[in-house]
Amino acid sequence: MLAENEFEIRVRYQETDAQGHVHHANYLTYFETGRTEQLRALGLNYRDLEDQGLYLVVVNAACQYHKGARYDDLLRVVTTTNRIRSATIEHQYRIFRGDELLVEGTTRLGCVDAEGTVKRLPGWITGEDLPEN
Amino acid sequence: MLAENEFEIRVRYQETDAQGHVHHANYLTYFETGRTEQLRALGLNYRDLEDQGLYLVVVNAACQYHKGARYDDLLRVVTTTNRIRSATIEHQYRIFRGDELLVEGTTRLGCVDAEGTVKRLPGWITGEDLPEN
Amino acid sequence: MLAENEFEIRVRYQETDAQGHVHHANYLTYFETGRTEQLRALGLNYRDLEDQGLYLVVVNAACQYHKGARYDDLLRVVTTTNRIRSATIEHQYRIFRGDELLVEGTTRLGCVDAEGTVKRLPGWITGEDLPEN
Amino acid sequence: MLAENEFEIRVRYQETDAQGHVHHANYLTYFETGRTEQLRALGLNYRDLEDQGLYLVVVNAACQYHKGARYDDLLRVVTTTNRIRSATIEHQYRIFRGDELLVEGTTRLGCVDAEGTVKRLPGWITGEDLPEN
Repeated sequence: MLAENEFEIRVRYQETDAQGHVHHANYLTYFETGRTEQLRALGLNYRDLEDQGLYLVVVNAACQYHKGARYDDLLRVVTTTNRIRSATIEHQYRIFRGDELLVEGTTRLGCVDAEGTVKRLPGWITGEDLPEN
Repeated sequence: MLAENEFEIRVRYQETDAQGHVHHANYLTYFETGRTEQLRALGLNYRDLEDQGLYLVVVNAACQYHKGARYDDLLRVVTTTNRIRSATIEHQYRIFRGDELLVEGTTRLGCVDAEGTVKRLPGWITGEDLPEN
Repeated sequence: MLAENEFEIRVRYQETDAQGHVHHANYLTYFETGRTEQLRALGLNYRDLEDQGLYLVVVNAACQYHKGARYDDLLRVVTTTNRIRSATIEHQYRIFRGDELLVEGTTRLGCVDAEGTVKRLPGWITGEDLPEN
Repeated sequence: MLAENEFEIRVRYQETDAQGHVHHANYLTYFETGRTEQLRALGLNYRDLEDQGLYLVVVNAACQYHKGARYDDLLRVVTTTNRIRSATIEHQYRIFRGDELLVEGTTRLGCVDAEGTVKRLPGWITGEDLPEN
């Protein structure tokens, strides 16, 4: 699953703020959409994980803002899986408008059960169960 | 519980949009805060309802926008309970900046269980169980 | 422009709430995306309107909630323009998951300038300038 | 202005997600509210800065999530100004529920004009103009 995925997002009016740009907190939501779509592109679904009683929670996040996106901009969210350990996944994100890098960031996710206890990621996420291809 | 309650909300930057005003969807969130605080002022707590396995879901909502609020405005949210039936509650909301009416609206909430089946509201919400005072 | 348009939206985790469904305020944002995409399908762009110094503001909105959407649901937002007058546009929205109607609503938009003064909609929006087709 | 400020925020239903906790992106909004209220406690107002044609934009942000807040929790947002330079301000934030640290983070803000050009922070923000007290 050390894959790279690209996904397009159109900026909604609701996501902008009075400075005329996307409010900085919303890029974390774009990141989240990026990693969801990366999973889907691999034929996997985060909802299946929750159906098994496992949850991915954000342990930390960091974001660097170079330039602000505007309403109706078509953004490319490039998501890379940097590292997978037994109970954590690290992603990197870069958000582009055309070839211009607007925002980049990282997150570390941890796998927990409904009580918040740390759990091993299932093999179909870490790739151990996957047939080689 | 046919009460009227007033609650102040300070507009956050994140709630504005590129037109420089509060995005229209956010007033529904202000309404929600208004009815939560109305309950609290009566010594009741919506979280207690959920602890009993009951949920209030929004059945319908309507909103009229007269004038837009801006960042950092201090708003007064006036919440009135218009009608309580066995499984529904109707509220009315008026949002003021000073004496100026900016937005008004209504919602109807329905009481359901975790499966979405309609349920009777408990007496401590409808007021039937409450001691007279 | 009395057109009907259909647009797909994938529910984001951020749009859900602790009841496990899309928070009711977010459907107004889906409606907004619906009318933006309806314009785009007609070869028009709301951003062009703002570049002319004109803004569409929401005058009223109403929403009926039949059933809640969940994380990762793929929704169809069907947007219909019901009526166009010199300075207002009325839309109707229906949100489906498959063939199941989840939410429906209406909005009335008004055309104003940067000072909030009511203005005539330009012909390229009302359709008066458009070649017949 | 190297002050520390404490501000209370009540978690809204709209801020939670289907995992039952505050969605992780919303803590950035709590941080923003924290620094706004820190300014206000000093007798200053961010809106005055914008009235001078100056804007604070977020250059970077980082967040560590220890434990999730829930609906209706009353949170304490503790905001500390770590460093002020000619055109940037660094803040640190800690969010508590009672004595329990839930989330902590940092931001760096940059001062720009409407065109996005870096500008000196005015003395009333950096403290240079302020009477000693």
